[in-house]
Amino acid sequence: MKALWLEDLALSVRDVPVPRCEDEALVRVRLSGICGTDLELARGDHPFTGVIGHEFVGEVAEAPDPAWVGERVVGDINASCGACEACEAGRPTHCEARTVLGIVERGGAHAEYLTLPVENLHRVPASVPDEAAVFTEPLAAAVEILEQVPIESSDRVLLVGAGRLGQLVAQTLATTGADLAVVARHQHQRALLAARDIPTIDADDVAPSRYDIVVEATGSPSGFELARAAVRPRGTIVMKSTYRGELTLDLSSLVVDEITVVGSRCGPFDRALELLERGDVDPRPMITERYPLGRAVEAMETAARPDVMKVLLEP
Amino acid sequence: MKALWLEDLALSVRDVPVPRCEDEALVRVRLSGICGTDLELARGDHPFTGVIGHEFVGEVAEAPDPAWVGERVVGDINASCGACEACEAGRPTHCEARTVLGIVERGGAHAEYLTLPVENLHRVPASVPDEAAVFTEPLAAAVEILEQVPIESSDRVLLVGAGRLGQLVAQTLATTGADLAVVARHQHQRALLAARDIPTIDADDVAPSRYDIVVEATGSPSGFELARAAVRPRGTIVMKSTYRGELTLDLSSLVVDEITVVGSRCGPFDRALELLERGDVDPRPMITERYPLGRAVEAMETAARPDVMKVLLEP
Repeated sequence: MKALWLEDLALSVRDVPVPRCEDEALVRVRLSGICGTDLELARGDHPFTGVIGHEFVGEVAEAPDPAWVGERVVGDINASCGACEACEAGRPTHCEARTVLGIVERGGAHAEYLTLPVENLHRVPASVPDEAAVFTEPLAAAVEILEQVPIESSDRVLLVGAGRLGQLVAQTLATTGADLAVVARHQHQRALLAARDIPTIDADDVAPSRYDIVVEATGSPSGFELARAAVRPRGTIVMKSTYRGELTLDLSSLVVDEITVVGSRCGPFDRALELLERGDVDPRPMITERYPLGRAVEAMETAARPDVMKVLLEP
Repeated sequence: MKALWLEDLALSVRDVPVPRCEDEALVRVRLSGICGTDLELARGDHPFTGVIGHEFVGEVAEAPDPAWVGERVVGDINASCGACEACEAGRPTHCEARTVLGIVERGGAHAEYLTLPVENLHRVPASVPDEAAVFTEPLAAAVEILEQVPIESSDRVLLVGAGRLGQLVAQTLATTGADLAVVARHQHQRALLAARDIPTIDADDVAPSRYDIVVEATGSPSGFELARAAVRPRGTIVMKSTYRGELTLDLSSLVVDEITVVGSRCGPFDRALELLERGDVDPRPMITERYPLGRAVEAMETAARPDVMKVLLEP
């Protein structure tokens, strides 16, 4: 099968064997999405050799349970062992023996086929088109915020960052009815938000100590500093991005102001699919370009451009 | 009146005028306790000139409402303005115009008398002796943890640090029935915990990624590092101490492991008094020495010794 292969920091589209695992479902990929993590892998931020890609919508071609065959699905990217302490405690995404689709020890989604354990699969409701379903994984990560932090409609919420993940976070936060403002650096980011009636604010206009909840989705130290300045005493900062290197933090000020800082990563696919089915979140305007899988290397270059939001690949 | 006066980093017991404020209650101090913050003020960590001290139990001598006169009381140390946004939002301890007893713009408790707004006062139940009631303020800070983080009896909880505040935190955490272990550096700290049947653990024996909730009460970077190593993915670190200087933190690891970090400071006096009344917490074995107020300078020196827990002053 055709796949986007990463090896020694070089990307190529090549023919590789169709993955086989008799305990798992074989999924024919219908669409895959290029994510910031794919770009980081290609830059060598994390070591990985193989097929990259973890955002997808596909159709089950083979499965241990034949009831799954033919179903249109998305899938949790963490394949856990089911036996370790984290798994038994109900935290399979933190399983220490886990493999991660297209990220850790498991071939990914920028390919004609992938395999995943059946328990990772979620059926896509008929009314959700492929172009929306392919965003389920990052949308689930956005929805995780609502699982971790109760947000009331009376809350003042600031989102710092409106990139690929930030846009999904913005739409997700908007479903709470909270008083939301988004710091978006680029015009194309602001335009997407404006189309959803989500207010934006200049970083310079963010009032200090004003917001009950601040979500940091830039992954830059300056973004975290803005978040820290904006949160009120006893407020909550949700960190939705990883950071390169370490960050120096005045921990005493967190104690004195009684701030809560929440690290947030993967989330619930079922809630994400519900938001898509109800139309509360529509990620499709984020699609900048769509490439056939054969032009995946060019697609990765496009996805790295600062003015580009989401690039899709079609096997 | 006699009082412990701090000026230009020099401590002295001197005669000062009895404080007067007709809108507030005048409290005759029965006992006051020397706290780590008092030692920090004397070291010059925060600028302050005047009477230090903020842990006390006393008797109301005068009050705008005569019903208070003669009552035995403890008092919230933050006197808030009642009008600013923080006050109106129900966070008076974060009022930007607040004064703080013996810490910020308000004479303190190591004296024969102090004043506080009546709304700051809490009656002490008759069964709670002065020697226990004088711990209400730091105990309230310990109880704040339970207000911020739900702790179940099935949780594994680690406390790092067993100094003055740590001991109160340990007893408070023990009331939850959780599986608690305490890292205590000094033998006298371990002995106090053993007397309450609270298990201790050597820092070297702390298993990584094991604890649902870790409370950091050392205020040292090594204490925070131990807490960070001990907390499980999706667990919570409660920071109960301020830190000198800034701390470098791998924020990405907090995101990847989805850790919550909670800064925690002042707490509810009413819940603290309940714990004392029920005998669930008994701080009295922590009292190392008791001095007359006239020997307060010597008492401060004693309190600074590493083997000393709580030193009380008696006007």
